[in-house]
Amino acid sequence: MKESGIGSQKIIRRKRDGELEYLPDDLTIEEPLEIRVGRKPIATTMRTPGHDEELVAGFLLSEGIVHARNQIANISVSGDNRVDVELTAGVKLKLNSTKRFGTISSSCGLCGKKSIDTIRQNFAAVGSTDIRIDIEMLLSLPETLRNAQSDFARTGGIHAAGIFGVDGKLKIAREDIGRHNAVDKAVGRAFLDELLPLERHILLVSGRASFEIMQKTLAAGIPIVAAVSAPSSLAVELARDSNQTLIGFLRPPSFNIYTHIERVILQNS
Amino acid sequence: MKESGIGSQKIIRRKRDGELEYLPDDLTIEEPLEIRVGRKPIATTMRTPGHDEELVAGFLLSEGIVHARNQIANISVSGDNRVDVELTAGVKLKLNSTKRFGTISSSCGLCGKKSIDTIRQNFAAVGSTDIRIDIEMLLSLPETLRNAQSDFARTGGIHAAGIFGVDGKLKIAREDIGRHNAVDKAVGRAFLDELLPLERHILLVSGRASFEIMQKTLAAGIPIVAAVSAPSSLAVELARDSNQTLIGFLRPPSFNIYTHIERVILQNS
Repeated sequence: MKESGIGSQKIIRRKRDGELEYLPDDLTIEEPLEIRVGRKPIATTMRTPGHDEELVAGFLLSEGIVHARNQIANISVSGDNRVDVELTAGVKLKLNSTKRFGTISSSCGLCGKKSIDTIRQNFAAVGSTDIRIDIEMLLSLPETLRNAQSDFARTGGIHAAGIFGVDGKLKIAREDIGRHNAVDKAVGRAFLDELLPLERHILLVSGRASFEIMQKTLAAGIPIVAAVSAPSSLAVELARDSNQTLIGFLRPPSFNIYTHIERVILQNS
Repeated sequence: MKESGIGSQKIIRRKRDGELEYLPDDLTIEEPLEIRVGRKPIATTMRTPGHDEELVAGFLLSEGIVHARNQIANISVSGDNRVDVELTAGVKLKLNSTKRFGTISSSCGLCGKKSIDTIRQNFAAVGSTDIRIDIEMLLSLPETLRNAQSDFARTGGIHAAGIFGVDGKLKIAREDIGRHNAVDKAVGRAFLDELLPLERHILLVSGRASFEIMQKTLAAGIPIVAAVSAPSSLAVELARDSNQTLIGFLRPPSFNIYTHIERVILQNS
């Protein structure tokens, strides 16, 4: 059960007709994961077990702890909710940055600073590429991602993140109780496979696009990001500044485009 | 604009009929907040500005840094996204605990430990009380909370948390881009007003019930917690162990009861 990220227990359900039933119900598994680098605990996150190596790789990348695949010598997943990372000899853990890590969320990219410029010190803006996507392809992404999820996940217990080619083909799909973790897992997989930067790709995330989600996609060099729900003010600001196209409320047949509309072919020619 | 937690910008919208429009759109404000205790930064969170004093009070309580109102001497909110807390003379900041704080989310309650017993060291289970709620009252809560939100918030950009009396009357409602923050703000208000433990109250949160949400309600002594979406496995486990009634998918006329059903009057007599 743990592997699939789903547990089960008995609940009382009130159905739409008012009738009560006592029946088994699925639950998304949530467990803590301790991340250690060189035996030093640097973070603990609540996550859905599975793909922990990818989660940690994506996390290390998006937090700016590593920039290249070869900076990670080893990632060791243990059964008691702990992952040990060994950096390559000569790669130093930036303690100042680590110490500033926030508590409630992985907001360390800003850390009390008001300017979005601080981010640009860590991640370059996405380069100018000639990729263009059409509306029909864009509208197909949510269904493609949902089809890659389990029945249970689709009912709303688990978030998903998908990395697509510009032709709409799903390359990587990952799930987690937290959408930040789902993005870390998907990006982490691509990072471990040395596929970064993902210049000709699109990332779709269920739920909302926060600043942190955009930070993770920027770390992976993804030029087009779509979310099923709303983006935040800071997500839009970062996307604009990073040359990323940000699409929100992608609920076919509708969507909003917040930034860098030039990558979306709006008119049939 | 900042005070209301809503910003605005121009977007391209594709409507349901396929037509495109260029129009202004509201965005939920997201900004970082640095929390300092005795001048020492202990956490940074991304939040929607407003009610920062309450957010910090709720955070300090749910992280086990303070247990009583009189342990806080002063909370000072500055304009540059920073809050300074002074603890009362003699109250020590538990640095060991603070140092263990996680990064991605406020998961420090468990911190790599597998047993939920570690939580019980911080917060006692809710006491046995004789409160009972009926289904009609329970079903009324989501609409009551939505009515307390702005039009924009109801469209899905902002999460909400409400603290209700057992008669269904809304006592405190707070909003934030993060539902954890919304709960911290609501609980923080009650904590600052010395209303804890909230033995005869219900908390409703939009979105899902994670372990952390339950931890915050437990810190406030709230016996009945309802969520609009799914609870996690660990949320259910903590609720069961803490003598809390946990209701999920509260979407009238339906809902699920996961734990301690004895507080809900299921049959008309």
